[in-house]
Amino acid sequence: MSSAPVFEHRLTRRVQFHETDAAGVVHFSRYFVYVEEAEHALWRSAGLSIHPRQADVGWPRVHASFDYHRALRFEEEFEAWIRIVAIDEKTISYVCTLSRGDTRIATGRLTIACATRQPNQPMRAAPIPPEVRSRLAVAPSTGAAKRDES
Amino acid sequence: MSSAPVFEHRLTRRVQFHETDAAGVVHFSRYFVYVEEAEHALWRSAGLSIHPRQADVGWPRVHASFDYHRALRFEEEFEAWIRIVAIDEKTISYVCTLSRGDTRIATGRLTIACATRQPNQPMRAAPIPPEVRSRLAVAPSTGAAKRDES
Amino acid sequence: MSSAPVFEHRLTRRVQFHETDAAGVVHFSRYFVYVEEAEHALWRSAGLSIHPRQADVGWPRVHASFDYHRALRFEEEFEAWIRIVAIDEKTISYVCTLSRGDTRIATGRLTIACATRQPNQPMRAAPIPPEVRSRLAVAPSTGAAKRDES
Amino acid sequence: MSSAPVFEHRLTRRVQFHETDAAGVVHFSRYFVYVEEAEHALWRSAGLSIHPRQADVGWPRVHASFDYHRALRFEEEFEAWIRIVAIDEKTISYVCTLSRGDTRIATGRLTIACATRQPNQPMRAAPIPPEVRSRLAVAPSTGAAKRDES
Repeated sequence: MSSAPVFEHRLTRRVQFHETDAAGVVHFSRYFVYVEEAEHALWRSAGLSIHPRQADVGWPRVHASFDYHRALRFEEEFEAWIRIVAIDEKTISYVCTLSRGDTRIATGRLTIACATRQPNQPMRAAPIPPEVRSRLAVAPSTGAAKRDES
Repeated sequence: MSSAPVFEHRLTRRVQFHETDAAGVVHFSRYFVYVEEAEHALWRSAGLSIHPRQADVGWPRVHASFDYHRALRFEEEFEAWIRIVAIDEKTISYVCTLSRGDTRIATGRLTIACATRQPNQPMRAAPIPPEVRSRLAVAPSTGAAKRDES
Repeated sequence: MSSAPVFEHRLTRRVQFHETDAAGVVHFSRYFVYVEEAEHALWRSAGLSIHPRQADVGWPRVHASFDYHRALRFEEEFEAWIRIVAIDEKTISYVCTLSRGDTRIATGRLTIACATRQPNQPMRAAPIPPEVRSRLAVAPSTGAAKRDES
Repeated sequence: MSSAPVFEHRLTRRVQFHETDAAGVVHFSRYFVYVEEAEHALWRSAGLSIHPRQADVGWPRVHASFDYHRALRFEEEFEAWIRIVAIDEKTISYVCTLSRGDTRIATGRLTIACATRQPNQPMRAAPIPPEVRSRLAVAPSTGAAKRDES
């Protein structure tokens, strides 16, 4: 397993046909699927599963957004680069940049909360477990990253 | 609640944009979503939920198919007519016809099995509960129905 | 057709099974499908289609976000209330509130841009056509609406 | 590019969270997405795109079916093995087996038709173009394949 805590992941992905819509491009709701796929890959690279079969906590989303700059089309390859930008007591925040080669496609933000997970009961906010906290880290704020997000 | 057992349901539905693909028509995988929406509406009309929060059994699909005759496009209205064609000890079989006005769009078949549903255990085939069996019925095989399916 | 310009729409919807995920609730990406369904219903109520078969312009999304307050579960009925909050030269902005009875589920924002739509050419921002502008209006900012969004 | 015609493809894939439903397993409609992803990868491995931006023909689906044997869960890795079993004048038929290790998950069939593709006109059946026909081949019917499909 990884020794140093993980703060980013780059997922390379090809646009599938079922992700396109009648405008000939990827449907805007699918970008949220892309950021989640990148998020879960980040967790796996940290030796974690975000939804193990038996777990006391779950990770409901509390905020998700995208700014769309360019379209993606069928069979195009793109990269989803997700970074952890904040870890608070009960929430984790990410920024995600989708790009195709040098072209920036979209910039997204995602915040998830740790919540108790019990059958047939409403979720309640809960502290992030130490096991998770020790494996995830906040991404360093480099000039390059800042430029990319501007 | 309904007194006589229910054997069919007609669902009227409009094509949503996210259901289309880059060929400009509804993606073929969505037809299986349509038949399921009609199935669950049939169960509700029989006073049942196919997935109540606490239940001993679930209803995994064991077969699903569609023959596609015509395309559906954004904002078109269509009808999904589902009928129960067989109820065995552990399975229920449906036929579903999608149509837009007088135009037949597609004909599908769906078979589901009753299975025990316990956390973190594989599902096992189980007899259909009497409560379900008493509320659902096999559709009468009329000449009209036969003609429609030919 | 409608005489007065339309600025809001309330869509009543039931959660479908395929919209849920293994956490037992509606997947967060589906909320963006809900807001779009409400948007397109608003356009229809104004006598418009957002994607007619032959059109010079399309309406790519430039921003979409949701803040999630509560979960939605299978077969729950909810309301998606969408309002136009701004119409600029080339963009239209909406706010959308999802609620189940008196419970607020989520609050979303969506901004779309008018863009030229020509086969195999990149889209370019374009002024909103007068026909569209005359049928859509900005929602009045009432105290009730403000309270709801606070 | 490939020299020998291609008749099969094995796609390795991981179950994504948004593909699961409230029963905790992959939604049955998603299997049709998996077979299509494998189909399009097969075409790419043959040097073809099934939906190039400018093309005279498209490939609507005329039949799709799955028999479901086992469930797939979040983050499980599986293989979608698709083979061409017939190429007629205007149609191509595939068989697709989904498996996880030695466990057979599902067996599907898919038939697509070649059709003319013109803006705002209904599709019409058309002969498969020689370019496509020369790059695709029917899979040899081996004892192993037969055993697998029994």
